Amino acid sequence: MAITVVGSVAFDTIETPAGRKERCLGGAATHFSLAASFFTDVRVIAVVGEDFGPEQEAVFKARSIDIRGIEHASGKSFFWEGSYLDNLNEARTHATELNVFGAFQPKIPDEYRDSEYLFLANIDPVLQKRVRDAMPNVKLVAGDTMNYWIKDHKPALLEVLKGLDILLINDTETKMLAGNNNLVQAAREVMSYGPRMLVTKHGEYGATAFFGAILNGFNGKTFRAPALPLEEVVDPTGAGDSFAGGFFGYLASQPTLTPSVLRSAMFYGSVMGSFAVERFGTERIAQLTRKEVDERFTQFRELTHLD
Amino acid sequence: MAITVVGSVAFDTIETPAGRKERCLGGAATHFSLAASFFTDVRVIAVVGEDFGPEQEAVFKARSIDIRGIEHASGKSFFWEGSYLDNLNEARTHATELNVFGAFQPKIPDEYRDSEYLFLANIDPVLQKRVRDAMPNVKLVAGDTMNYWIKDHKPALLEVLKGLDILLINDTETKMLAGNNNLVQAAREVMSYGPRMLVTKHGEYGATAFFGAILNGFNGKTFRAPALPLEEVVDPTGAGDSFAGGFFGYLASQPTLTPSVLRSAMFYGSVMGSFAVERFGTERIAQLTRKEVDERFTQFRELTHLD
Repeated sequence: MAITVVGSVAFDTIETPAGRKERCLGGAATHFSLAASFFTDVRVIAVVGEDFGPEQEAVFKARSIDIRGIEHASGKSFFWEGSYLDNLNEARTHATELNVFGAFQPKIPDEYRDSEYLFLANIDPVLQKRVRDAMPNVKLVAGDTMNYWIKDHKPALLEVLKGLDILLINDTETKMLAGNNNLVQAAREVMSYGPRMLVTKHGEYGATAFFGAILNGFNGKTFRAPALPLEEVVDPTGAGDSFAGGFFGYLASQPTLTPSVLRSAMFYGSVMGSFAVERFGTERIAQLTRKEVDERFTQFRELTHLD
Repeated sequence: MAITVVGSVAFDTIETPAGRKERCLGGAATHFSLAASFFTDVRVIAVVGEDFGPEQEAVFKARSIDIRGIEHASGKSFFWEGSYLDNLNEARTHATELNVFGAFQPKIPDEYRDSEYLFLANIDPVLQKRVRDAMPNVKLVAGDTMNYWIKDHKPALLEVLKGLDILLINDTETKMLAGNNNLVQAAREVMSYGPRMLVTKHGEYGATAFFGAILNGFNGKTFRAPALPLEEVVDPTGAGDSFAGGFFGYLASQPTLTPSVLRSAMFYGSVMGSFAVERFGTERIAQLTRKEVDERFTQFRELTHLD
């Protein structure tokens, strides 16, 4: 089943202990769609500037991602510059230039309208809601957000959460959104805002799924997927979006939601996140094979299963 | 098979967001031996003062722990006061009174000499080494340490590590000991000092086992055990020692070391750690039943296993 994703397609300049890379292809919708494309058809809604050309398009096309919803505007694409020199778990932002993204008005191509799955990547909740409302017939909606929207745009964000089945955010964001320092209590509070399932990501420690009303008889249960202990993290940018892509892409590839499907989705999320950080930007996932994905899935099973 | 453990038996005054408790029974050897007693026979070597009486002895005896190696000295027992008001993952120490522990010279009762398992809880590495050397015929030796010994007593600690099969410490200690901020690289470095297996504990995120030469053909593999997402952490004191007790107690109860036994040991460690934090001091583990241990083991399996 096809996923439509709305979010940023951007250029990132990134500095990590492994080096510095100028203007990598980046953006949440980019990382999400590349990861999800290993499991299902993906359609992107975004806006780019004149600096986005055939070279960047080729990255999407090589993974058969539908980019008819990527609008070309005059000006420059969204640009972010950041570093992870002190702490690989937290970026220091040096520059954010919205450029064409500042006036982004998502338009949904007719060809996207039969998408059964919708992912609202981390953008202004006002835009997230507009896309959500424009696609009322989707079967499952998941989304992401960040501390900036939680702190300064909470009313708009709460409107988005009402229409969300699954929210994927990190621990700190979960606690901040709920105003509660206990993760379990915060998760319950966040699910009372709308989402029927919450996935909290813990960076190098994996992720926890809190199940709400998403599955009959599963309410209140939890599931933990690990992260792979990695010898070297080259670039953490996009790890969370790649997790979301693996997670939601796998869900969209399955006929029904079962406990086993949701658990496997958590593992595929961790698998895609673990690849994302191995090289700068989209380099690793763009060159990945399905065989490597399956091999790492097996590795994650061995990492966590008793037998 | 019996475990001999050497370490502190103490009184702790603890303040957490859940409240304040004066002079709980505590100490690494106490928490370790209570947790390990659910799996195997445990024998304690420690020193206590005149404030340690029948009430404290009863806690050990109720779990059939051999305390003939607890020496009674004139003076007061080791005392620690700390709080976790800002951060449940890190104690703030308000007072440490070594008291009778300051002149502790571990003596090994003859009845303990046939112990096949030895646990060196977190004490002065000079004493750890003395006990290790005095029991050359044990089958397996595990131990713990802390930042204080790593920073200021490294040469003595390195001597202990040479004679250790399994070291159990937390992430920060692993990185500090190796002088390397990448956990995987740090783990490999630490194992080059002696231990054939390293267990790094991540607090609320569980623990990772790094396998070295402990098992043929398993070198370089890892295993991750989760921690239970908890609604309330009453008191984190002793969680790490309880983890070690569950882990090593289970190992000592099994005839041989296999991958499956080591993985289950990681789970039993997490299980005992998860109980420890539910009440102050030793309260929870002292009242625990084996049935509850097994039920939580099943819960940990459901929390992590795909099927």
